[in-house]
Amino acid sequence: MEHDVKVSKAVLKRLPGYLAYLKSMPDSAPANISATALANALNMGEVQVRKDLAIVSDGGRPKVGYQREALIDDIEQFLGYDNTTDAVLIGAGKLGLALMAYSGFDAYGLNIQAAFDINPTMEKTEDGQPIYHISRLAHYCKLHKVLMGIITVPAGAAQEVADQLIAGGVKAIWNFAPTHLDVPPNILVQNENMATSLAVLSVHLRAAMKEEKK
Amino acid sequence: MEHDVKVSKAVLKRLPGYLAYLKSMPDSAPANISATALANALNMGEVQVRKDLAIVSDGGRPKVGYQREALIDDIEQFLGYDNTTDAVLIGAGKLGLALMAYSGFDAYGLNIQAAFDINPTMEKTEDGQPIYHISRLAHYCKLHKVLMGIITVPAGAAQEVADQLIAGGVKAIWNFAPTHLDVPPNILVQNENMATSLAVLSVHLRAAMKEEKK
Repeated sequence: MEHDVKVSKAVLKRLPGYLAYLKSMPDSAPANISATALANALNMGEVQVRKDLAIVSDGGRPKVGYQREALIDDIEQFLGYDNTTDAVLIGAGKLGLALMAYSGFDAYGLNIQAAFDINPTMEKTEDGQPIYHISRLAHYCKLHKVLMGIITVPAGAAQEVADQLIAGGVKAIWNFAPTHLDVPPNILVQNENMATSLAVLSVHLRAAMKEEKK
Repeated sequence: MEHDVKVSKAVLKRLPGYLAYLKSMPDSAPANISATALANALNMGEVQVRKDLAIVSDGGRPKVGYQREALIDDIEQFLGYDNTTDAVLIGAGKLGLALMAYSGFDAYGLNIQAAFDINPTMEKTEDGQPIYHISRLAHYCKLHKVLMGIITVPAGAAQEVADQLIAGGVKAIWNFAPTHLDVPPNILVQNENMATSLAVLSVHLRAAMKEEKK
């Protein structure tokens, strides 16, 4: 089916949850699943689940529900997991190398082709992906038509890296640097701020400890 | 200063940004910085920055601003980066091992003591952290007074792991499994959904490609 791409972030946030649940079901489970059953299993509102599924699949049948395997395919296709997205990663430090080594991204259609660093300490990652000097970044992106850049440099260097990615034709940036990036309106930045997450957890823990001492 | 711990998540989200910027300033920069200067540098509203800083530090002086080093200390203390939080990680797969290997968390005061897995394939990580069978999880947490658990198991196993963590006395859960966790109100779950991030990026890229073809 043709997708209206103006789907909300809220929907995109829920779809991987449905997918994970559907894929976790044993082979022995019934071949069909209704929006109601899915809503109950995930403790969510039935109307919302019904609407969300209608966005990604036209396979729902009254009283029968969705064919589970077909629904999995539809969600994966909608999320682009079936298409490989080539990406580059900038900042071959500890976080960057850990992300390069994480082959779990394959399942989401993400292929990190190469890494770039201002001071490459080795020529290749353990898995054989090349690590180039950052001066080659924009040219590489243009040459290989790379559309996504993953930024794992320190905060102070992130904006310059983003500018070079955009000069190289990149349309989407996954930003692990704890800083705001200024980009043109046609470029999407998805911020992954682990420092924020840790701050939220840490402040909660301090509050919890205070409560216990009372 | 005594902190009111009921600070909003929005504030916690902004503090690491201030911190990153302050730490990225060269030693040669002036010793003082005003909320106005910080707001301008980060492209943020002055009133908001002023309010945020007032929450974490009482060191601001009219016309002088904050002492930069003292402000860094105050933010780090507020965020708990100066206290070490001991954590355990459950799910010693690719993502889990990558997180264990990422020593960048030290800077945020996070110390991952040990990993647990339903099927440990080795006794220790490369850095020497022990990997135990998951049956020892709750007991270990109680014994070592562990307050934070990091979940990197598949979605289908995450709830059971969360239940065991809570039985072991854990108060905060950093959840990398793409699923919702049911927990009592005194437990904080911080979800880190990389699958969602990738979905958002991927759907944007598809839309961007369609635009170009027009």
